[in-house]
Amino acid sequence: MKRKKCIFSVDMKANERLQHAIRTRNSLVCVGLDVTLDKMPKHLLKERDPVLRFNRAIIEATADLVAAYKPNLAFYEALGAEGWTLLRKTLECIPEGIIRIGDAKRGDIGSTARKYAEALFGMGFDYVTVNPYMGSDSVSPFLEDEEKGIFLLCLTSNPGSRDFQYLDTGGKPLFQRIAEKAAAWNKAGNCGLVAGATHPEELGQIRTIAPELPLLIPGIGAQGGDLEASVLQGTDRQGTLAVINSSRGIIFASQGEDFAQAARSQAELLRDDINRVRAAKIRRLGT
Amino acid sequence: MKRKKCIFSVDMKANERLQHAIRTRNSLVCVGLDVTLDKMPKHLLKERDPVLRFNRAIIEATADLVAAYKPNLAFYEALGAEGWTLLRKTLECIPEGIIRIGDAKRGDIGSTARKYAEALFGMGFDYVTVNPYMGSDSVSPFLEDEEKGIFLLCLTSNPGSRDFQYLDTGGKPLFQRIAEKAAAWNKAGNCGLVAGATHPEELGQIRTIAPELPLLIPGIGAQGGDLEASVLQGTDRQGTLAVINSSRGIIFASQGEDFAQAARSQAELLRDDINRVRAAKIRRLGT
Repeated sequence: MKRKKCIFSVDMKANERLQHAIRTRNSLVCVGLDVTLDKMPKHLLKERDPVLRFNRAIIEATADLVAAYKPNLAFYEALGAEGWTLLRKTLECIPEGIIRIGDAKRGDIGSTARKYAEALFGMGFDYVTVNPYMGSDSVSPFLEDEEKGIFLLCLTSNPGSRDFQYLDTGGKPLFQRIAEKAAAWNKAGNCGLVAGATHPEELGQIRTIAPELPLLIPGIGAQGGDLEASVLQGTDRQGTLAVINSSRGIIFASQGEDFAQAARSQAELLRDDINRVRAAKIRRLGT
Repeated sequence: MKRKKCIFSVDMKANERLQHAIRTRNSLVCVGLDVTLDKMPKHLLKERDPVLRFNRAIIEATADLVAAYKPNLAFYEALGAEGWTLLRKTLECIPEGIIRIGDAKRGDIGSTARKYAEALFGMGFDYVTVNPYMGSDSVSPFLEDEEKGIFLLCLTSNPGSRDFQYLDTGGKPLFQRIAEKAAAWNKAGNCGLVAGATHPEELGQIRTIAPELPLLIPGIGAQGGDLEASVLQGTDRQGTLAVINSSRGIIFASQGEDFAQAARSQAELLRDDINRVRAAKIRRLGT
């Protein structure tokens, strides 16, 4: 409650809160907190709670540069019961005003989806990623509280996105149908879409189909997505309404004692690269 | 390791192990261990570890009647870090020879899917349910160990299954494309499909497309699926290669002190109802 009163107006919708974070911080950067022990700085492994120390240091070093953090739950589930405690404590390290996205890709029948929503929003996430395959009743429990939101998987950044997401469904690919549905489901202003940087042209199609929905854009860096084209295609006319995720490229920028400073440098570079493209887009459109 | 040596031949593939469980126990019943505190017997809530006591009592009362148990992870995640410990301890209560299905509906890019597979199979599950939307590289990490398997979501039992799973994709509905892919991905004999009892006619189509794949059939009971038609359409010619899930109808059959005995009675009724249909099918086919 304190969090909301301090930074956000009461009753601010999830998507408004995300836009507020983007604008006040002048950043589209989302840092993926996808920690694995084998990639962490070796000196931390000798200490107590190495993952929490790592996450806290990364957050403290980058918090003024980013709009959102996004832990992927797989990396915490892999640590067992301890992983869940660690995830909760990591969320507590994130300063007010920054959006906390739980990359969970959940989806289940209505009564079960409600349990997932309770678990994940209750833990402190502002947004959760949700898989659309099971349809409306698997999604709607995540949309009931307008202050909490979802990013619905639409066109993912991985090679397997070619298997089903592009299938022609009566003249348009499946991912476009998902984008249309999401736009219709966005009644409370708390629905967004996941659209990968590995498909910049389709990002533009999705932006057109769902002009009011924020996009979570993964896939730059190790996955080879096109940063410039993604920013141009994925943002709105003001160069906002999107966050660009980087995980490994930021958090594992160095395995030495300078890991937090190296992460900061990479986050700053990414923010500035993105902002140059945003500025050029705004100049071009005259918005 | 002990588990495998006692009951299963070394190197038995996941689907063979499932068939072995079905045949030796003469049962297609899968009990969904989807526990919520508000539906549990009130007297248990006064004791320590009520959920574990409940699960253990249900398992002890029904183990000779079933082929599989299926905890849905949402109900354990809703209990936080403690839920994960509880889930692991619940799996330890399940006797050797019975299949343990983690209803997780996970799906993520390859490197992340690998983490989920490690977490869930490492915890002791034999099968995990997986969402197909993200395609091959999100599924393949779950198929690498032939002794562990998946049930890929194909046609789910909920109303939202109508939103995308029936979309016409060049002359056939999306769910049939998923079934075709799953049949192709079943190289190691460890891939199955989820197909809901609320769509018995389509169950028959899926059985035809993927004749060698086991089906996990949810949706009888509270969801209104058709048991007889599902057994007829979903099993193979020997009346096997499928498990029929019931959650609430069995585990919450009574909220009194007789809850375990009531669960046993319902599991026995379900097994016998199913077996009558299987026997009739076998008689009719002469197999």
